[in-house]
Amino acid sequence: MIKARITVTLKTGVLDPQGKAIEGALGTLGFGGVAAVRQGKVFDVVLEGDDRAGAEAQLAAMCDRLLANTVIENYTVDIA
Amino acid sequence: MIKARITVTLKTGVLDPQGKAIEGALGTLGFGGVAAVRQGKVFDVVLEGDDRAGAEAQLAAMCDRLLANTVIENYTVDIA
Repeated sequence: MIKARITVTLKTGVLDPQGKAIEGALGTLGFGGVAAVRQGKVFDVVLEGDDRAGAEAQLAAMCDRLLANTVIENYTVDIA
Repeated sequence: MIKARITVTLKTGVLDPQGKAIEGALGTLGFGGVAAVRQGKVFDVVLEGDDRAGAEAQLAAMCDRLLANTVIENYTVDIA
Protein backbone atom coordinates (compact mmCIF):
# COMPACT_ATOMS: atom_id res chain seq x y z
CA MET A 1 0.00 0.00 0.00
CA ILE A 2 1.22 3.46 -0.88
CA LYS A 3 -0.32 6.47 0.85
CA ALA A 4 -0.06 9.82 -0.87
CA ARG A 5 -1.33 13.29 -0.19
CA ILE A 6 -2.10 15.52 -3.16
CA THR A 7 -2.48 19.23 -2.46
CA VAL A 8 -4.12 21.41 -5.09
CA THR A 9 -3.88 25.19 -4.73
CA LEU A 10 -4.80 28.11 -6.95
CA LYS A 11 -1.95 29.68 -8.88
CA THR A 12 -0.71 33.08 -7.80
CA GLY A 13 -2.81 35.80 -9.38
CA VAL A 14 -5.93 33.69 -9.79
CA LEU A 15 -8.83 35.28 -7.91
CA ASP A 16 -10.06 33.27 -4.91
CA PRO A 17 -13.51 34.54 -3.88
CA GLN A 18 -13.92 31.69 -1.38
CA GLY A 19 -10.68 32.68 0.34
CA LYS A 20 -11.80 36.31 0.38
CA ALA A 21 -15.11 35.31 1.97
CA ILE A 22 -13.28 33.36 4.68
CA GLU A 23 -11.01 36.35 5.27
CA GLY A 24 -14.09 38.52 5.74
CA ALA A 25 -15.76 35.99 8.04
CA LEU A 26 -12.64 35.76 10.21
CA GLY A 27 -12.69 39.55 10.54
CA THR A 28 -16.37 39.47 11.51
CA LEU A 29 -15.56 36.88 14.19
CA GLY A 30 -12.98 39.25 15.68
CA PHE A 31 -9.78 37.71 14.33
CA GLY A 32 -7.59 40.70 13.53
CA GLY A 33 -4.40 40.82 11.54
CA VAL A 34 -5.40 38.37 8.81
CA ALA A 35 -3.53 39.53 5.72
CA ALA A 36 -4.74 36.87 3.29
CA VAL A 37 -6.55 33.53 3.05
CA ARG A 38 -6.51 31.21 0.05
CA GLN A 39 -8.35 27.93 -0.09
CA GLY A 40 -7.26 24.74 -1.79
CA LYS A 41 -8.05 21.06 -1.82
CA VAL A 42 -6.32 18.00 -0.48
CA PHE A 43 -6.73 14.40 -1.62
CA ASP A 44 -5.53 11.45 0.44
CA VAL A 45 -5.05 8.60 -2.00
CA VAL A 46 -4.22 5.00 -1.11
CA LEU A 47 -2.79 2.91 -3.94
CA GLU A 48 -2.36 -0.84 -4.00
CA GLY A 49 1.13 -2.26 -4.47
CA ASP A 50 4.56 -0.94 -3.47
CA ASP A 51 5.93 0.56 -6.69
CA ARG A 52 6.80 4.08 -5.55
CA ALA A 53 8.19 5.28 -8.89
CA GLY A 54 5.13 4.00 -10.73
CA ALA A 55 2.87 5.51 -8.10
CA GLU A 56 4.49 8.90 -8.51
CA ALA A 57 3.88 8.88 -12.26
CA GLN A 58 0.32 7.60 -11.79
CA LEU A 59 -0.52 10.25 -9.19
CA ALA A 60 0.82 13.03 -11.43
CA ALA A 61 -1.32 11.68 -14.28
CA MET A 62 -4.38 11.64 -11.99
CA CYS A 63 -3.77 15.30 -11.14
CA ASP A 64 -3.34 16.27 -14.77
CA ARG A 65 -6.44 14.43 -15.94
CA LEU A 66 -8.90 14.80 -13.05
CA LEU A 67 -7.84 16.26 -9.73
CA ALA A 68 -6.38 19.61 -10.76
CA ASN A 69 -7.21 22.19 -13.39
CA THR A 70 -3.64 22.94 -14.40
CA VAL A 71 -4.64 26.14 -16.18
CA ILE A 72 -5.38 27.81 -12.85
CA GLU A 73 -4.12 25.35 -10.21
CA ASN A 74 -0.82 23.96 -9.00
CA TYR A 75 -0.50 20.58 -7.37
CA THR A 76 2.04 18.83 -5.17
CA VAL A 77 2.25 15.09 -4.53
CA ASP A 78 3.73 13.80 -1.26
CA ILE A 79 4.17 10.06 -0.96
CA ALA A 80 4.29 8.92 2.67
CA MET B 1 4.32 38.10 8.34
CA ILE B 2 3.52 34.56 9.37
CA LYS B 3 2.46 32.03 6.74
CA ALA B 4 0.53 29.01 7.86
CA ARG B 5 -1.12 26.08 6.15
CA ILE B 6 -4.22 24.59 7.77
CA THR B 7 -5.28 21.15 6.56
CA VAL B 8 -8.79 19.95 7.39
CA THR B 9 -9.63 16.29 6.81
CA LEU B 10 -12.59 14.09 7.67
CA LYS B 11 -12.22 11.92 10.74
CA THR B 12 -11.79 8.19 10.24
CA GLY B 13 -15.16 6.51 9.91
CA VAL B 14 -16.96 9.57 8.58
CA LEU B 15 -18.44 8.81 5.17
CA ASP B 16 -16.88 10.76 2.28
CA PRO B 17 -19.16 10.57 -0.76
CA GLN B 18 -17.01 13.09 -2.64
CA GLY B 19 -13.93 10.91 -2.16
CA LYS B 20 -15.91 7.86 -3.29
CA ALA B 21 -17.02 9.71 -6.42
CA ILE B 22 -13.41 10.62 -7.23
CA GLU B 23 -12.38 7.00 -6.67
CA GLY B 24 -15.05 5.92 -9.16
CA ALA B 25 -14.04 8.58 -11.67
CA LEU B 26 -10.39 7.52 -11.49
CA GLY B 27 -11.46 3.95 -12.20
CA THR B 28 -13.51 5.13 -15.18
CA LEU B 29 -10.46 6.98 -16.51
CA GLY B 30 -8.47 3.74 -16.40
CA PHE B 31 -6.45 4.29 -13.22
CA GLY B 32 -6.33 0.86 -11.61
CA GLY B 33 -5.26 -0.07 -8.10
CA VAL B 34 -6.83 2.88 -6.29
CA ALA B 35 -7.73 1.53 -2.84
CA ALA B 36 -9.22 4.70 -1.36
CA VAL B 37 -9.59 8.45 -1.89
CA ARG B 38 -10.61 10.95 0.77
CA GLN B 39 -10.95 14.66 0.14
CA GLY B 40 -10.15 17.48 2.50
CA LYS B 41 -9.54 21.20 2.46
CA VAL B 42 -6.48 23.35 2.81
CA PHE B 43 -6.28 26.99 3.87
CA ASP B 44 -3.18 29.12 3.33
CA VAL B 45 -3.39 31.91 5.87
CA VAL B 46 -1.07 34.92 6.08
CA LEU B 47 -1.06 36.73 9.41
CA GLU B 48 0.43 40.12 10.15
CA GLY B 49 3.15 40.37 12.80
CA ASP B 50 5.81 37.91 13.94
CA ASP B 51 4.37 36.41 17.13
CA ARG B 52 4.55 32.69 16.36
CA ALA B 53 3.12 31.49 19.69
CA GLY B 54 0.22 33.91 19.44
CA ALA B 55 -0.33 32.93 15.82
CA GLU B 56 -0.50 29.26 16.74
CA ALA B 57 -3.22 29.91 19.31
CA GLN B 58 -5.10 32.23 16.95
CA LEU B 59 -5.01 29.72 14.08
CA ALA B 60 -6.29 26.93 16.33
CA ALA B 61 -9.13 29.21 17.44
CA MET B 62 -9.94 29.99 13.78
CA CYS B 63 -10.18 26.27 13.07
CA ASP B 64 -12.40 25.62 16.09
CA ARG B 65 -14.72 28.50 15.31
CA LEU B 66 -14.91 28.65 11.52
CA LEU B 67 -12.61 26.55 9.38
CA ALA B 68 -13.27 23.04 10.68
CA ASN B 69 -16.31 21.19 11.97
CA THR B 70 -14.58 19.43 14.84
CA VAL B 71 -17.43 16.98 15.26
CA ILE B 72 -16.50 15.26 12.00
CA GLU B 73 -13.19 16.85 10.97
CA ASN B 74 -9.60 16.94 12.18
CA TYR B 75 -7.26 19.82 11.47
CA THR B 76 -3.52 20.37 11.48
CA VAL B 77 -1.74 23.73 11.53
CA ASP B 78 1.74 24.09 10.01
CA ILE B 79 3.46 27.41 10.46
CA ALA B 80 6.10 28.01 7.80
